[in-house]
Amino acid sequence: MNIKDRIIQQAGRLFFQYGVKSISMDEVASSLGISKRTIYENFKDKEDLLLSYLKHEFEQRNQLVREFMEQCDNVIEVFLHIMEIHKTASFVNVKFYEDIYKYYPRVNAFLKNEHNKANDFLIKFLQKGIEQGVIRENLNVKVVAFLVEESTSVYIRASYLEKPPFSFSELTSTMMINFIRGISTEKGIKIVDEYLMKHQIEQ
Amino acid sequence: MNIKDRIIQQAGRLFFQYGVKSISMDEVASSLGISKRTIYENFKDKEDLLLSYLKHEFEQRNQLVREFMEQCDNVIEVFLHIMEIHKTASFVNVKFYEDIYKYYPRVNAFLKNEHNKANDFLIKFLQKGIEQGVIRENLNVKVVAFLVEESTSVYIRASYLEKPPFSFSELTSTMMINFIRGISTEKGIKIVDEYLMKHQIEQ
Repeated sequence: MNIKDRIIQQAGRLFFQYGVKSISMDEVASSLGISKRTIYENFKDKEDLLLSYLKHEFEQRNQLVREFMEQCDNVIEVFLHIMEIHKTASFVNVKFYEDIYKYYPRVNAFLKNEHNKANDFLIKFLQKGIEQGVIRENLNVKVVAFLVEESTSVYIRASYLEKPPFSFSELTSTMMINFIRGISTEKGIKIVDEYLMKHQIEQ
Repeated sequence: MNIKDRIIQQAGRLFFQYGVKSISMDEVASSLGISKRTIYENFKDKEDLLLSYLKHEFEQRNQLVREFMEQCDNVIEVFLHIMEIHKTASFVNVKFYEDIYKYYPRVNAFLKNEHNKANDFLIKFLQKGIEQGVIRENLNVKVVAFLVEESTSVYIRASYLEKPPFSFSELTSTMMINFIRGISTEKGIKIVDEYLMKHQIEQ
């Protein structure tokens, strides 16, 4: 991995865990054993670094979804694969999003734009599932696309809980399995159940 | 309706629509055609009025749930009845909750306590549904109880949307039907489908 990618990855990890504002460029540099100057040779400022990190994350996410869509027979299986990816994540420090909202307008605008693109994509994706007979045809896809994007906020608020009575992985799988079953036809639910049985996933 | 109840109802309506901070006791009084003195004879201050309103709302909600539980054969039907009630509500001004969080600590504590009670109740309620064979037995009830309470925040954030591409009623019914189907067994889903067909509800 080149130095630029290493900086992006480490900064992202620190921002996610402690928030953006509380992490200095010095801390990013020293945690990598490099000089602050090396960071500034690659990134204009902290907002630039944060934006590079998020762009990288979204590109990776979109690439994965494209791969899943090629590999999978139907929309339900794509959702289930995405669930598997999500489960390996962890609670994000609420300061991460609060800081972006308060202090980094360019990043905020970027997230808003990604959100809109994701919404448009999701509506088409759900309609494809309806054509495949795995998603209910009388489903209000606009509301459902909104709810999918909203799930990010559920994770954020769960990370506010002082003593969460469940793990991040339990939250993700229960939420996603319920969600997928909820929008599925009988045929879709069978695909879910077979997948869960095969992978022995808790629901 | 006595004057105290009339004040509570009108104040609640105004707070919901415009937020708490921006509504003065003068406005509550004049919108009812009464003097401000009459309000202060019944309520110590605005926080007292707001708290009375919320207590009244929660009592009504709990009373309704108790009635549904007596009338209905199973947990799924209770959920469906609750959905019908929710659908008649409307988007709340986000300032309503923001103001409570920022300026009314007693009300905030009250809401937190109600939230905890609702969570405990929901876990028992879901377990009853599992015994009835209408809710999936491998369901993580702690996560689901959290998600039910979280749905309030989804409504709040939907009211942030500049141009929501759906009505409040569409949001409520899609969200609740998906949710109920998601946690249901085959037997539970049949109850949902029959109910929707009978009441000709859009999904």
